[in-house]
Amino acid sequence: TPVTEDFAEGYPSDEEWHGYINNNDRVLLKVIHYSSPTSAGAECIDPNCTWVEQWVHRAGPREKIYFKPEEVKAAIVTCGGLCPGLNDVIRQIVITLEIYGVKNIVGIPFGYRGFSDKGLAEMPLSRKVVQNIHLSGGSLLGVSRGGPSVSDIVTSMEERGINMLFVLGGNGTHAGANAIHDECRKRKLKVAVVGVPKTIDNDILLMDKTFGFDTAVEEAQRAINSAYIEAHSAYHGIGVVKLMGRSSGFIAMQSSLASGQVDICLIPEVPFNLHGPHGVLRHLKYLIETKGSAVVCVAEGAGQNLVEKTNATDASGNIVLGDIGVRIQQETKKYFKEIGIPADVKYIDPTYMIRACRANASDGILCTVLGQNAVHGAFAGYSGITVGICNTHYVYFPIPEVISHPREVDPNSRMWHRCLTSTGQPDFI
Amino acid sequence: TPVTEDFAEGYPSDEEWHGYINNNDRVLLKVIHYSSPTSAGAECIDPNCTWVEQWVHRAGPREKIYFKPEEVKAAIVTCGGLCPGLNDVIRQIVITLEIYGVKNIVGIPFGYRGFSDKGLAEMPLSRKVVQNIHLSGGSLLGVSRGGPSVSDIVTSMEERGINMLFVLGGNGTHAGANAIHDECRKRKLKVAVVGVPKTIDNDILLMDKTFGFDTAVEEAQRAINSAYIEAHSAYHGIGVVKLMGRSSGFIAMQSSLASGQVDICLIPEVPFNLHGPHGVLRHLKYLIETKGSAVVCVAEGAGQNLVEKTNATDASGNIVLGDIGVRIQQETKKYFKEIGIPADVKYIDPTYMIRACRANASDGILCTVLGQNAVHGAFAGYSGITVGICNTHYVYFPIPEVISHPREVDPNSRMWHRCLTSTGQPDFI
Amino acid sequence: TPVTEDFAEGYPSDEEWHGYINNNDRVLLKVIHYSSPTSAGAECIDPNCTWVEQWVHRAGPREKIYFKPEEVKAAIVTCGGLCPGLNDVIRQIVITLEIYGVKNIVGIPFGYRGFSDKGLAEMPLSRKVVQNIHLSGGSLLGVSRGGPSVSDIVTSMEERGINMLFVLGGNGTHAGANAIHDECRKRKLKVAVVGVPKTIDNDILLMDKTFGFDTAVEEAQRAINSAYIEAHSAYHGIGVVKLMGRSSGFIAMQSSLASGQVDICLIPEVPFNLHGPHGVLRHLKYLIETKGSAVVCVAEGAGQNLVEKTNATDASGNIVLGDIGVRIQQETKKYFKEIGIPADVKYIDPTYMIRACRANASDGILCTVLGQNAVHGAFAGYSGITVGICNTHYVYFPIPEVISHPREVDPNSRMWHRCLTSTGQPDFI
Amino acid sequence: TPVTEDFAEGYPSDEEWHGYINNNDRVLLKVIHYSSPTSAGAECIDPNCTWVEQWVHRAGPREKIYFKPEEVKAAIVTCGGLCPGLNDVIRQIVITLEIYGVKNIVGIPFGYRGFSDKGLAEMPLSRKVVQNIHLSGGSLLGVSRGGPSVSDIVTSMEERGINMLFVLGGNGTHAGANAIHDECRKRKLKVAVVGVPKTIDNDILLMDKTFGFDTAVEEAQRAINSAYIEAHSAYHGIGVVKLMGRSSGFIAMQSSLASGQVDICLIPEVPFNLHGPHGVLRHLKYLIETKGSAVVCVAEGAGQNLVEKTNATDASGNIVLGDIGVRIQQETKKYFKEIGIPADVKYIDPTYMIRACRANASDGILCTVLGQNAVHGAFAGYSGITVGICNTHYVYFPIPEVISHPREVDPNSRMWHRCLTSTGQPDFI
Repeated sequence: TPVTEDFAEGYPSDEEWHGYINNNDRVLLKVIHYSSPTSAGAECIDPNCTWVEQWVHRAGPREKIYFKPEEVKAAIVTCGGLCPGLNDVIRQIVITLEIYGVKNIVGIPFGYRGFSDKGLAEMPLSRKVVQNIHLSGGSLLGVSRGGPSVSDIVTSMEERGINMLFVLGGNGTHAGANAIHDECRKRKLKVAVVGVPKTIDNDILLMDKTFGFDTAVEEAQRAINSAYIEAHSAYHGIGVVKLMGRSSGFIAMQSSLASGQVDICLIPEVPFNLHGPHGVLRHLKYLIETKGSAVVCVAEGAGQNLVEKTNATDASGNIVLGDIGVRIQQETKKYFKEIGIPADVKYIDPTYMIRACRANASDGILCTVLGQNAVHGAFAGYSGITVGICNTHYVYFPIPEVISHPREVDPNSRMWHRCLTSTGQPDFI
Repeated sequence: TPVTEDFAEGYPSDEEWHGYINNNDRVLLKVIHYSSPTSAGAECIDPNCTWVEQWVHRAGPREKIYFKPEEVKAAIVTCGGLCPGLNDVIRQIVITLEIYGVKNIVGIPFGYRGFSDKGLAEMPLSRKVVQNIHLSGGSLLGVSRGGPSVSDIVTSMEERGINMLFVLGGNGTHAGANAIHDECRKRKLKVAVVGVPKTIDNDILLMDKTFGFDTAVEEAQRAINSAYIEAHSAYHGIGVVKLMGRSSGFIAMQSSLASGQVDICLIPEVPFNLHGPHGVLRHLKYLIETKGSAVVCVAEGAGQNLVEKTNATDASGNIVLGDIGVRIQQETKKYFKEIGIPADVKYIDPTYMIRACRANASDGILCTVLGQNAVHGAFAGYSGITVGICNTHYVYFPIPEVISHPREVDPNSRMWHRCLTSTGQPDFI
Repeated sequence: TPVTEDFAEGYPSDEEWHGYINNNDRVLLKVIHYSSPTSAGAECIDPNCTWVEQWVHRAGPREKIYFKPEEVKAAIVTCGGLCPGLNDVIRQIVITLEIYGVKNIVGIPFGYRGFSDKGLAEMPLSRKVVQNIHLSGGSLLGVSRGGPSVSDIVTSMEERGINMLFVLGGNGTHAGANAIHDECRKRKLKVAVVGVPKTIDNDILLMDKTFGFDTAVEEAQRAINSAYIEAHSAYHGIGVVKLMGRSSGFIAMQSSLASGQVDICLIPEVPFNLHGPHGVLRHLKYLIETKGSAVVCVAEGAGQNLVEKTNATDASGNIVLGDIGVRIQQETKKYFKEIGIPADVKYIDPTYMIRACRANASDGILCTVLGQNAVHGAFAGYSGITVGICNTHYVYFPIPEVISHPREVDPNSRMWHRCLTSTGQPDFI
Repeated sequence: TPVTEDFAEGYPSDEEWHGYINNNDRVLLKVIHYSSPTSAGAECIDPNCTWVEQWVHRAGPREKIYFKPEEVKAAIVTCGGLCPGLNDVIRQIVITLEIYGVKNIVGIPFGYRGFSDKGLAEMPLSRKVVQNIHLSGGSLLGVSRGGPSVSDIVTSMEERGINMLFVLGGNGTHAGANAIHDECRKRKLKVAVVGVPKTIDNDILLMDKTFGFDTAVEEAQRAINSAYIEAHSAYHGIGVVKLMGRSSGFIAMQSSLASGQVDICLIPEVPFNLHGPHGVLRHLKYLIETKGSAVVCVAEGAGQNLVEKTNATDASGNIVLGDIGVRIQQETKKYFKEIGIPADVKYIDPTYMIRACRANASDGILCTVLGQNAVHGAFAGYSGITVGICNTHYVYFPIPEVISHPREVDPNSRMWHRCLTSTGQPDFI
């Protein structure tokens, strides 16, 4: 009985109900972050770079559990955009809850909206329902952005009798989850709110990687290879691929590195010029003249100074970005027309085809462990926490620690330099 | 020795050099086209539909060969856009030429352009060079549109000593090939010009299917499934996928039928309204209200009356189409905003990711047989012909017979009605 | 209303209930078989080969339907081994039945066994249940071999009130279906029994291809390519792949042709020696000496004279074949050891990994049309028939016409000669 | 210039030539191993488990390089069996050597054998040759086991003028590489010998993972899913999949965890009985009775006490294992026959189809960084080292530190317990 052996008979007294994991928790784990907390594991190129040693809370089953399984009503909600692995996490939360003995498990449809929209019924969940959902992409529960106020959500939870809430979403969703946790504390509700970070961009602080990222890099290969084939088979062919990455370029960087077929990789963290003697376009001219073709991989959030500002925001409150991919395509066409060299520019935006994929095996494992640990954390009585993998270990973090700002690619990191070595690109400033 | 056993010692006298396959050729084959020549195999829904019986020229090795292999210089050229299977055909032509004993085989780089551009060198081809090229997409030789005049091409061929030319391309390219054939006849050059129809749209008259089409339908599943997942996982999600098909909707129709996930399929051959009581948008509203999500699959050439006319043409002389996919996306967003129902519209254009794929097994076989037959035809002394599969048989056609206009989906065909049964869509007029 | 427009109000009188499609059926279709009925579309290499013109029964909706939809209880049963596309056919039968208005649809679990095993409950089927089953391989209903007597099956059908039975299976299963049809006639039951031929081997008489075959050839590429990579990367590497094909070599032949990587293709229809001056082993020695590696693709039913006879039969009554793949592997190792040349032999049997695949797009379309037509046929009052594609047209056949013996590869067919040209192999006799 | 900026003008004096990385190397890195060095990152389930802090040598470019690029003749050799990613590593070593300015790069064909076999010519390598080799599996150079004596290898290296040797292989190959390094020291040859651990089993001490492992787990999903589909679609179906893992069960464990479809996972590190009240067979009976089907995933090295001992060894000196997969298949059939319950057992061995795959994106990145670092290490003058990733950092290890014995799954590790939670299996003792 691998999971349950750790759980003693008795339940903790109310004093032991701790909300945020407290610092006396003895299941600590020492991890090392090189360089800075914002680039966990990034390995600065400075050979003398320093590191931080940090004690974190190991994830996993605890000896005592706070909730009686038969009194639990657990709810799962998925917010924001799609990300490979959502169904894997949902599935594993349900299966692990059943192993603990929980019978009352529901899915809240279409994100936080499902708490307020009367037309949307709770979806009863069980092992039978979730058995094979990880074999397809998307979210069984549906996703959406925005939703009712924190107060309304907690009121709805009270009405529904939910005392465990699992929230799958990004930074904004986690901020919401933490606010729900705070509101529950205020109302003296014994509710555990546990997040599972869902960001295909891999931009959560302190975490080695988030689920869906590995699958995204894998699927991006298809788009990059198509761009390479198109560019290579055309006379003076240039392939431009736009990948996800609103404020951090991990997908673009790793995908370029993996493919070995990218000549120019552009990410939000590293400024660049299109025009001028050091600009991207001049380098494209050089590539066309020497190699005959070129492939550009650009993160959606790169070069936002080069596109028109929009003041629009989406339902999640994210600023709607200008389209740097289309911009590069247009400027490239214009540039080569002006200099009188034919160029055949092809633009590929595979975003939805990547997001909608099912998780690959590596993400499947990650999701399984995160799902198990989310349930372990809730049963241990933790609330306002999120689960993740840090320095190769699965851990719990208080939500506020990881959402202050997005994790970014460190331009001084070895990984970015490996990418530069691979592409052979110069500085574009 | 399966191929060569058919070839006798002697070579035909000059009178036997026939150019177009002549009607006394005794290797005939009877095929049946139901309904009309424009919808080969389409099976009209009228139960009393008529058919045409036609004698066609069976493809394959002939008893006598016109060329001495040691005197052959064969050239291969690939024109137009990419299509899965180009490398398979190139490979098989080279391998079959070598089996005949030809040593001098070259690739003309980047389409007809390679005949005139001094900077582009002929690429020597052999089994060793082409052994594994079918494992990747694109064209080993490169493609491009446009090129020099027919007269300049033939002059270049004379200078290079080319007496066998294999041309892989679409309708326009085949018209060019036929003009080259005519020009060679005019100059009394003993040159065999053989086409292999390359149109991912599957729009060549009289042919059951053209290479690349099957792969395109296969790869389109990925895009349609992504649209389905996105639509299904979103609140009031609508996924729109644009597929290839300038003047015929075979890819959109077959892909919709294969997926079982498409609610609305729009093709160039069947007019539709977006607005009005029978329009697409009204049906989308119905689908959102009843099913909660919808998937639209539209061929790029559909509904051209609904987008702004451009008078621009590309280097191949094709009119640049207005973008019906983007149009539908925008109108759908506008419509649902106007009627006050939230809708989450996602648009996917997988065109380049489909074109750049390697051929699947089915197309691999088709390409292999077409490549073998192209060489058999040239060696038999045929010129101005193209190869294809017709009523399940591999045949030769005089080029003019198949390029007068694109083959189209017959709106009265059983296949289109099967598609309608599958999508459940009404008429949109 | 594509499907229903053909159906008039009235139902046929009892005299019109015809069982086998009768020859006065006016919806005829003329097809051409070259060479002989046993090798439909095979195209004999004899340039003067003859052909048969045949009138067949076009599949599709009929003007009059025999059953009142509200009185129909339809059952589906899947027998024998797995084949890609089973779920696609099940799904489409259910969807088309619902379009006709049928409400009472059930699945019989685990083949004919489900009629007799009291522990196995009927599975209620509806569009909701089958919506996405085509996205995974296998059979929703389960398969098995063997089962109760025909008499017991019909008695069970009477008890259950089943008046439409859709049977998915191979030759043996179809023989059973026909016997059920006969028994129903004898008992004066108004039951329509319609088969859908399920044979991954593609060995049904008169049919262009059966569902699952195309997918099998596609998936076999993975195994052949692995064998090629292993052979090519090893010192004197020899890769042996065994593919399906009990009595006909279509999968092995088409897979070899598609891959372009096979040196020796062995099928049941073409005898061969392993040993001796013309044997396979001597040719392998030649390949190792000249190319350094070799790939062999062998159909499971090939060379049964070279393996020990077993008298065992499986539950379907099929003789358990001796394992020719293992035999070739062992003999090859022994041979090279004896002649003192090192050889690294790798053996791959991908059978189950191929069978369990989901259908590819091409088979998806085939299954969809077969499923629709099976329902059209049953509603038209046909019984004892099976559906298929013949000379590019979808047709109905009386079961006895297609199951007298398995369709085989004609060693004189052009397709086999194309395969020989591709592999470059000699005769092995 | 990301790579070269670190390299100063001068070259180190001979004293600086260090062979093994010396302990004064200031580019150190602190890593943490929990539990024990044999289960790096394994996370013992004991909440008080201890850890080891270790200083390791960070991989990457060094300020001073020992070799003048124009004097370098670099050789690459790949030994043992196939593993996804070999071509990626070869490619990146060549590309990075060219970035350093090396012109003379060769591949030694077919492992160490290529040093002695006169018939096997060196293969000249350059960026042009290796550009796209990572797109296919296998090894461009060929692999083999065994080969000449260390002394003969070094003599051959002297004759060829090789002063950089990159060795891709497993434990045995690394032992050989270290002996070559020692022999070079003895002969006072200034040769850098650098290993890249190639073990699909992921069983190298101290390393987070080795290349090819991630791809193997990914590809294994296909086999497991096939087994699941076969088992699930059959009446009392049992699917048995044998995966790689001679002495450690990482592939079986991770693949089971990723799939969510495995009921019983058997690995070499955890003993089990087949028979008896706690045996695997009894649990299979339970699964058949309760679930109706079951999937078993077994590592090839598991349960070696249950199969007949062979004393045979392969050319690498590895003991030829008894076939536990076949054994389980046979015993299962026998057992169910004996207890009179029908069971349909299907056995899948996907080994070669997994090994021959191209690397997935994750392994592609790993291979790229390992290849870059191998060259950095050699240029820095390190010899007798190997490269790897340890506690998320890329590092160099002296070869002897990592090959004393294979890394194994710790039965007390959290990962194994997560796997048990996922499968729900009991102890089988």
